[in-house]
Amino acid sequence: MAELSSREIQLGARPTGRPSLENFVVVEKRVADPAPGEVRVRNLWMSVDPYMGNRLYDRPNYIPPFRLDHPLDGGAVGEVLESTVPDFTPGDLVFSQYGWREIFNAKPHRLTRLEGTLPPQAHLGIAGITGMTAYTALYRVAKLQPGETVYISAAAGAVGSTACQMAKIDGCRVIGSAGGPDKKRFLEELGVDVAIDYKAEPDLSAALAAAAPDGINVYLDNVGGDHLQAALTNMAVFGRIAVSGMIGDYGEERRPGPSNLFMVVAQRLRMEGFLLNDHAPEIRETFLDKITRWLADGSIQSSETIHDGITSAPQAFLDLFAGKNVGKMLVKLG
Amino acid sequence: MAELSSREIQLGARPTGRPSLENFVVVEKRVADPAPGEVRVRNLWMSVDPYMGNRLYDRPNYIPPFRLDHPLDGGAVGEVLESTVPDFTPGDLVFSQYGWREIFNAKPHRLTRLEGTLPPQAHLGIAGITGMTAYTALYRVAKLQPGETVYISAAAGAVGSTACQMAKIDGCRVIGSAGGPDKKRFLEELGVDVAIDYKAEPDLSAALAAAAPDGINVYLDNVGGDHLQAALTNMAVFGRIAVSGMIGDYGEERRPGPSNLFMVVAQRLRMEGFLLNDHAPEIRETFLDKITRWLADGSIQSSETIHDGITSAPQAFLDLFAGKNVGKMLVKLG
Repeated sequence: MAELSSREIQLGARPTGRPSLENFVVVEKRVADPAPGEVRVRNLWMSVDPYMGNRLYDRPNYIPPFRLDHPLDGGAVGEVLESTVPDFTPGDLVFSQYGWREIFNAKPHRLTRLEGTLPPQAHLGIAGITGMTAYTALYRVAKLQPGETVYISAAAGAVGSTACQMAKIDGCRVIGSAGGPDKKRFLEELGVDVAIDYKAEPDLSAALAAAAPDGINVYLDNVGGDHLQAALTNMAVFGRIAVSGMIGDYGEERRPGPSNLFMVVAQRLRMEGFLLNDHAPEIRETFLDKITRWLADGSIQSSETIHDGITSAPQAFLDLFAGKNVGKMLVKLG
Repeated sequence: MAELSSREIQLGARPTGRPSLENFVVVEKRVADPAPGEVRVRNLWMSVDPYMGNRLYDRPNYIPPFRLDHPLDGGAVGEVLESTVPDFTPGDLVFSQYGWREIFNAKPHRLTRLEGTLPPQAHLGIAGITGMTAYTALYRVAKLQPGETVYISAAAGAVGSTACQMAKIDGCRVIGSAGGPDKKRFLEELGVDVAIDYKAEPDLSAALAAAAPDGINVYLDNVGGDHLQAALTNMAVFGRIAVSGMIGDYGEERRPGPSNLFMVVAQRLRMEGFLLNDHAPEIRETFLDKITRWLADGSIQSSETIHDGITSAPQAFLDLFAGKNVGKMLVKLG
């Protein structure tokens, strides 16, 4: 083969306040032939995820900020075009962190070959970090027990919609909240017991009290702010709050936290934050078995919101934080 | 014997905003002879404790509000004056919840006979709920390990000063904060590694960063507010925050919580609230053995701030929330 043209998304300028399309730049590059020991990959799908939000800003974080004038990175699934190493063959499906670009060369240890029968993009969502995050939050952090009442905010999102379905498999009472009538309908189709359109609720705490008269045993927080406040008010004794990233805290300004943290004492709550990376190596195999079975027997369904083409990636990213997705937000590149 | 005169403290009116002496009433009563099956007790010491603060207000709490025009209640140690039952004899030292009054009659099951060599008032403090709270927070909730760095706010208070000494026994690096130079000196005398006078610190978070360059493994929070915010900023990865009641949240108005709860995710923190009642039955015996030994061998010392006479109890209570005590705040009645 030869040099190929590839477009990539770079961070042109860090946002002050909320990000906008102006912060992103589309750059066209020539990708050379893979050097000896490298593999050339064409991405088919890339992922935009909530954890990327904080990386736009230059501030302390658990993961370094995106670099200016470099391609962004993140999860992607692609096919091998050309390989100089025996481990990979053209046509192989691979997972990598080389998202936000069309074509790249990489060392083999940066690629994971994908096996099995799942559709490629599932590895960026329900069978990837999305699904594993939901699984970790419910079972490893919150230690959800069958029959308990669980409240999931951002329930129409990628992690939320997966967690709702997992908890239903366990016979839990599931309360999901999301913004807008379409998302509420989506939650009802997912089979949650109570779907709340928080934008239509004058008092989220009262809505939760009605939905969980005996209190909430487990709250899966990935929003923070008002949802955490309302959940705290309604937690049952010895409740657990698994915090998997506060998408609401994505902007530069920091909002005050809940004013009812006293509930942590009164109800003897445990609030615990986690990062998937601490858990993924240990659970990956078991999880992949389970999710493949659940997807096959229909007890879990994957929902996706898809943008088309690399140039739409910045908009997909902004839409994610504007809550415009139902299920996993993806960009189709292939 | 015969009818005896006893003074008691009643809640005359609930505070709006901060409480003041006007909310309390001293009432003189005649206490009849103990009825058959009852024991008559004269209190020697009574306790004022942070958890009582919320009971002034008529609002949801883990313990019912104090009733208007009834004597307040709380921990007390007294001596048996007269007994109609075989289990108690005049002169016995007993613990009860009949605080805030001088003399009372009670059923035997409401009294606990105190044995051992400790001074009577120790059972209201370092050998009672104070000491057990410190012990529970450090070992059962936060699971403090030898050699870790622990930060204790309100460190000159009853729970705090006990926790500081316990953690030192375990070879931990102990950072204690309290308000004012006298309390800071007291902490230094206790042997903490770094004593912080937070009133003299323009930036508590920076002071903690200097005191704990590798981060805080365990934070014992009984203050909330700014201390929690500063601690969150400085927690080490996988740090634990034991929350034993937020004395700062005692007033009627609710302050916003920390704006950096995102740290719970970034550092994978566990924040857990507890009430001593859930733990006390299980630990009481072991704890009493340990604390008796520690007090005997001098590895822990009890500090007390003492008010004299039942009529000073409301002032003692107000002083507790104004932070005027060093060590355990007590009222001597005997």
